[in-house]
Amino acid sequence: MSVAVDAMGGDRGPDVLVKGAVDAARDHGFGITLVGIEDVLRDTLQRQGGDDLPISIYPASQVVDMEESPADSLRHKKDSSIRVAFELVRQGKAKALVSAGNSGATLATAMVALGRINGVRPAIATLMPTLKKPVTMIDVGANVDCKPVHLLQFGIMGSVFSRELLDNSRPRVGLLSIGEEGTKGNQLVKRAYDLLADSDLDFIGNVEGGEVFKGDVDVIVCDGFVGNICLKLSEGLAKAVLTMLSSEIGEGLMAEMGYPLRSAFKRFYKIIDYAEYGGAPLLGINGIAIICHGLSGSKAVKNAIQLAHELAKIKLADKLDNFLSIRQKLFKAVR
Amino acid sequence: MSVAVDAMGGDRGPDVLVKGAVDAARDHGFGITLVGIEDVLRDTLQRQGGDDLPISIYPASQVVDMEESPADSLRHKKDSSIRVAFELVRQGKAKALVSAGNSGATLATAMVALGRINGVRPAIATLMPTLKKPVTMIDVGANVDCKPVHLLQFGIMGSVFSRELLDNSRPRVGLLSIGEEGTKGNQLVKRAYDLLADSDLDFIGNVEGGEVFKGDVDVIVCDGFVGNICLKLSEGLAKAVLTMLSSEIGEGLMAEMGYPLRSAFKRFYKIIDYAEYGGAPLLGINGIAIICHGLSGSKAVKNAIQLAHELAKIKLADKLDNFLSIRQKLFKAVR
Repeated sequence: MSVAVDAMGGDRGPDVLVKGAVDAARDHGFGITLVGIEDVLRDTLQRQGGDDLPISIYPASQVVDMEESPADSLRHKKDSSIRVAFELVRQGKAKALVSAGNSGATLATAMVALGRINGVRPAIATLMPTLKKPVTMIDVGANVDCKPVHLLQFGIMGSVFSRELLDNSRPRVGLLSIGEEGTKGNQLVKRAYDLLADSDLDFIGNVEGGEVFKGDVDVIVCDGFVGNICLKLSEGLAKAVLTMLSSEIGEGLMAEMGYPLRSAFKRFYKIIDYAEYGGAPLLGINGIAIICHGLSGSKAVKNAIQLAHELAKIKLADKLDNFLSIRQKLFKAVR
Repeated sequence: MSVAVDAMGGDRGPDVLVKGAVDAARDHGFGITLVGIEDVLRDTLQRQGGDDLPISIYPASQVVDMEESPADSLRHKKDSSIRVAFELVRQGKAKALVSAGNSGATLATAMVALGRINGVRPAIATLMPTLKKPVTMIDVGANVDCKPVHLLQFGIMGSVFSRELLDNSRPRVGLLSIGEEGTKGNQLVKRAYDLLADSDLDFIGNVEGGEVFKGDVDVIVCDGFVGNICLKLSEGLAKAVLTMLSSEIGEGLMAEMGYPLRSAFKRFYKIIDYAEYGGAPLLGINGIAIICHGLSGSKAVKNAIQLAHELAKIKLADKLDNFLSIRQKLFKAVR
């Protein structure tokens, strides 16, 4: 079964999406369904030399604008590329979805088309580089206002994701806060601390901002407002550090030192480049969906398709459903 | 008038605090009062060669432990170094205070000894390096649960601070959120957006995490939970980036390239080193207090004393009082 790609979404248009699909199909042999305006996609695919690859095109006549309100898109664009792509997943015609389009609309459409796992708040997980192995941060933007039980759910989903995808047999789960003790933090975090401490997760307690990049924890739980700010702050700071450092080293010195230094910078950039991770999975829905940065290039799209393929292969959505369903009573009790 | 230094607080003991005071007195001629256990401070001051400098010692018999609860310290340690130092400010015997001690206790003692400006939530402001000039971030830890009106107050205080200390004639104020439009963010931020937009500040709207280090805004407003996480995340990431990059460049190459490269790294580190800024002022109280990192070394202490001196010289507390007092009605109306 193929991975459905919303080939019309994103800030950079169909070119990078089709290119990412072509690269993924060529390098890994993945089946891919490009969803969108047929003429446009057929032309683009041909131009990218993807005719002989296992890539098909599924027509959708509408496109959700990057700035459009999610509610409007749901109401007025029943035949949008994002909606049709989700329908393919719902009908079992695609095993997963990749979107770089309007993320609010992607979230809303996921809820409507696939639905959430009963009683659960879906959340976006992302991998962040650290001095050791990557850490899973959840939620990074789906839920801006949370209750403590939602943070517990994020911890469970992050833990299952980390175990199944990254082979951490018993992931260490930390709660992002402003002090080590459980008494530190805002009201939300202090109450979530108790729920996580009472759970069967390997909860190691609060994690401060300064600890995130040390890599001593596998999963970091936070609400989607804090998580999204942290994610974007980190991207922005890593870029700013490189700019500042390059300017400190100076063009003259950089040229003089030549290839080894430039190469070290490039290798480093690869570590912090979100495109390497491709995209962020939306966990807690009845299916697999990967949300990419709107500015994603073809490399990010290619890697997102690979991630979608892997999550489908390990049946992540089913495993999350199992783990969450047996805790329904708990979720209701602590609500 | 002198700057009072809580010479017993901090993770590294009196040595670094006295050393910072000695350096500040020698280089700038500032009058300084070291507050704490007399014998200890007299010995340390002598050892640091500070006998002939304008540094006096004011006795306090107790020390607040770094892990002690603020309430306990207030109740049981009326003669603690932090309490006595604040009393010197209250009585007009010192013009400002510097503390690297238990920050919760410092905050609580500030409220009790000096009191807050009527109707205002005091907040901690800090300077963060950017690609352009430093940005003022407020609040970075005093208030973990905020109401919209508090964020408005932080915006006003940050704006006055930025104008008076950094000579930004009309500081651009941004609200930290997860999207540019005023409709993006959590409940707190969406309501604060409206208050800031209606204010007479130069409010430029929401600022995303990725924009913080670009330096296009003078003041960034957030609640103390988010701000503290951002501050610590940034420190941690900047350090991690240097570690990753050094390891990518490799010891061999680093040695081969010698002084210019090491020197560039050092200059860069100076940009991101919080010690350069010394400490973070607590704004909204009836006086000047600078809160330093518990791990501060003598350079941070020296710079914090300089900052305390400058804020006292420009009468920041009085100016804040003026600006906030005329808005009392507004604060009550939007509460």
